[in-house]
Amino acid sequence: MKHVLSASQFSREKILSLFATADRLKRERKDHGVLDYLRGKLVYLLFYEPSTRTRTSFGLAARYLGGRTDFTEAAGIFSSAAKGETLEDTIRVLQSYEIDAIVIRHKERGAAEAAARVAGIPIINAGDGDGEHPTQALLDLYTIVSNVRRDEIVVAMGGDLKHGRTVRSLCRLIIKYAADDAKFCLVFCSPPELAMRDDVLDELRAAGIPFSVTDNLSETLPACDVFYQTRVQRERFANALLGDAAFLDVQTRFALNAANVATMKPDAIILHPLPRVGEISPDVDADPRAKYFPEQTRNGLYVRMALLLTILRPDAV
Amino acid sequence: MKHVLSASQFSREKILSLFATADRLKRERKDHGVLDYLRGKLVYLLFYEPSTRTRTSFGLAARYLGGRTDFTEAAGIFSSAAKGETLEDTIRVLQSYEIDAIVIRHKERGAAEAAARVAGIPIINAGDGDGEHPTQALLDLYTIVSNVRRDEIVVAMGGDLKHGRTVRSLCRLIIKYAADDAKFCLVFCSPPELAMRDDVLDELRAAGIPFSVTDNLSETLPACDVFYQTRVQRERFANALLGDAAFLDVQTRFALNAANVATMKPDAIILHPLPRVGEISPDVDADPRAKYFPEQTRNGLYVRMALLLTILRPDAV
Amino acid sequence: MKHVLSASQFSREKILSLFATADRLKRERKDHGVLDYLRGKLVYLLFYEPSTRTRTSFGLAARYLGGRTDFTEAAGIFSSAAKGETLEDTIRVLQSYEIDAIVIRHKERGAAEAAARVAGIPIINAGDGDGEHPTQALLDLYTIVSNVRRDEIVVAMGGDLKHGRTVRSLCRLIIKYAADDAKFCLVFCSPPELAMRDDVLDELRAAGIPFSVTDNLSETLPACDVFYQTRVQRERFANALLGDAAFLDVQTRFALNAANVATMKPDAIILHPLPRVGEISPDVDADPRAKYFPEQTRNGLYVRMALLLTILRPDAV
Repeated sequence: MKHVLSASQFSREKILSLFATADRLKRERKDHGVLDYLRGKLVYLLFYEPSTRTRTSFGLAARYLGGRTDFTEAAGIFSSAAKGETLEDTIRVLQSYEIDAIVIRHKERGAAEAAARVAGIPIINAGDGDGEHPTQALLDLYTIVSNVRRDEIVVAMGGDLKHGRTVRSLCRLIIKYAADDAKFCLVFCSPPELAMRDDVLDELRAAGIPFSVTDNLSETLPACDVFYQTRVQRERFANALLGDAAFLDVQTRFALNAANVATMKPDAIILHPLPRVGEISPDVDADPRAKYFPEQTRNGLYVRMALLLTILRPDAV
Repeated sequence: MKHVLSASQFSREKILSLFATADRLKRERKDHGVLDYLRGKLVYLLFYEPSTRTRTSFGLAARYLGGRTDFTEAAGIFSSAAKGETLEDTIRVLQSYEIDAIVIRHKERGAAEAAARVAGIPIINAGDGDGEHPTQALLDLYTIVSNVRRDEIVVAMGGDLKHGRTVRSLCRLIIKYAADDAKFCLVFCSPPELAMRDDVLDELRAAGIPFSVTDNLSETLPACDVFYQTRVQRERFANALLGDAAFLDVQTRFALNAANVATMKPDAIILHPLPRVGEISPDVDADPRAKYFPEQTRNGLYVRMALLLTILRPDAV
Repeated sequence: MKHVLSASQFSREKILSLFATADRLKRERKDHGVLDYLRGKLVYLLFYEPSTRTRTSFGLAARYLGGRTDFTEAAGIFSSAAKGETLEDTIRVLQSYEIDAIVIRHKERGAAEAAARVAGIPIINAGDGDGEHPTQALLDLYTIVSNVRRDEIVVAMGGDLKHGRTVRSLCRLIIKYAADDAKFCLVFCSPPELAMRDDVLDELRAAGIPFSVTDNLSETLPACDVFYQTRVQRERFANALLGDAAFLDVQTRFALNAANVATMKPDAIILHPLPRVGEISPDVDADPRAKYFPEQTRNGLYVRMALLLTILRPDAV
């Protein structure tokens, strides 16, 4: 593994290995605090669009392993990009500074792949527009499999499934991870306008992962082991058919709250890639099934540590 | 002491202890350079509004003690906040990343308290709108008591006393610090439109701290031991009664300059929370009574080091 | 050497010493990774205008030597400057925080000199408007002399020679570096509207450095040992005589591409301060004469390391 570009690049074996490494790093960090694996390594966080959460999570992952980081928080506004420099040139310059890896977040789909084509050092995709967000998918799946011990896991996904890159990446990772003794069944629960796109549905069919499509939240909730809620992003609809009233209607009808969460299985879990706005009511936060924080976000730290270790110190895995 | 939210939370004993710790850290740093107390600790600087000065001061304080920092410089623009995430959620996510403390600067009064309500780790208020700025008050008082050795210290405050959170926090800290052998007398010297608000005056009355209110700078200067000048912020008046001409008139009439500073006591001191614009003329800078830099700003570094040490390593105090 | 403000401040001996130190640090870093010379030192990167490239290069230079850094990426927008604080006050405050050097990037010519006048610590000019960019000139010259071994080096400069601070600083550094056994001949190749200004031409005449002025790129390319291309910045012409069509015409006529680069000497080199937009076609990148990355940019790292070492640890040079 050199680059991390897409959830589809992982094999079941690689995913299991990463999760085992994450488990191990949790234990080591509990015992030793800051670790020493990445001493002398520098990870550059090249963020073209804002994401304090993801940038901080990657940065701390590198530093908790003993590495160093440098970053730019809004490369699109501040850096040479504003003067017209191509992403490829920016990558070439950064790697000439003798850094060890670049974590990239970009507004445009395919940006991480474009970076990887010219890079001699590892490129890690931290989200490329409406493309992929593979480390988010890894931390999501890690949270699912470390909580749900069943032969077949029913994962419902809610919210904006059409534009959300996290649900798309998670589906692709589940395809890679699923096995005879690790079966999945997916439920896509959204308003029809925001339904999961055909490309992912076709991939699921090809992989033999059963799924259903519905706009009925009240039927979905009691049936699932995992409800993965996502944000309906108002900005996705700036120039779209849905107006502001429709946006609010969608957000309200598909929101989780204490009342409808009460219908879920007692050992189901609720996830969210965050930030959450109105689609999970705060009265759900105290429910033991709510895992979006701190568990899911903390898992992001450890999955990213596992990835960085695997890429930069394969000898230490 | 877990959180640092308000100047009012400190007792005289705690303040004396912090100042003694600041003194001690000055000596230790002179002897040893970077210290080691916060090894393995990570302090997150969560700034929703710009403040290079305060952010740098807190960040270096943590690092000179051997700690690490991460920061966002404009969380309000760049972070998930722009997508509508609540402050509480941001705090929950950050602390899931196994950090040790959050220093928060926010545009809205009460933000630090809101953060503290959901935080399991220490929250340090680095300024919340027109609310408080307790570490500024601590460094101000530290600079006062380490310079002025009198039984009763006359502290005059000038500029915008109505909106200035530094003068409000300093008054509240003086209330806590004052004692029979450490008497204070306050003079609030400002145009009537910018006078200190009643809430603070009531607190002073209740505490038995004498004060007077005046708009006469020339009478105030010769009488005080400390003149604490503050900036009249043009932006505070965007939609207010004072127009731009009135703003300039106020700034000019209440400014310190070499001529009127000459009327001050020879051992008086001049402080300013900075940035200073026109309210202290540069011809005052060379006056030995001018302590706003480097002494007052440097004291900010040491007072913040003392606070971080007290909160994160109480065993080392 | 205390401050680094202008290319003109260096003597030939000092330049040779810096280049020897850069060579030595390359070797040491290859053997030892992160070095230890700046342990306990803090370099502050005070950037009033965006420059991810220069900021990162300086920051990593300090850190690869074992130092620490703090930075602000857009001081003009975010810091106290937005409230009206003078540059001088900002410098006074920063140095009160016990930092060891300030690297400053500012939109206005003369800003670094202004900072140096009030600073007790070293100030390093990382570009001041259309003034100077001395460390860029140092890395450019270092790349030239480590590639071209001739008694007389013909350096052609192309693009916007009127506004480009890099070419101006490079000329001034060549004046200081030139010697009987290190002769230079300059060719300024640009449209007349963007010709090198008289101040630099006068300095070259006074120093006895031969030069010619031309707008003929096809004659210039075969004759030079170094072609130093620069960006024609659209923003320089916002309110100028040249319109947008003229800008594109200039950019096209004076651009390097595989076809015209083929006419260059086989051992010539092509440099560019970057970012490059359209003035060097990507089809030149694979040409062995193209040194703009990774060599030239990497040299920036080592020249800056050499400078920081010379200034902050003269005993270790």
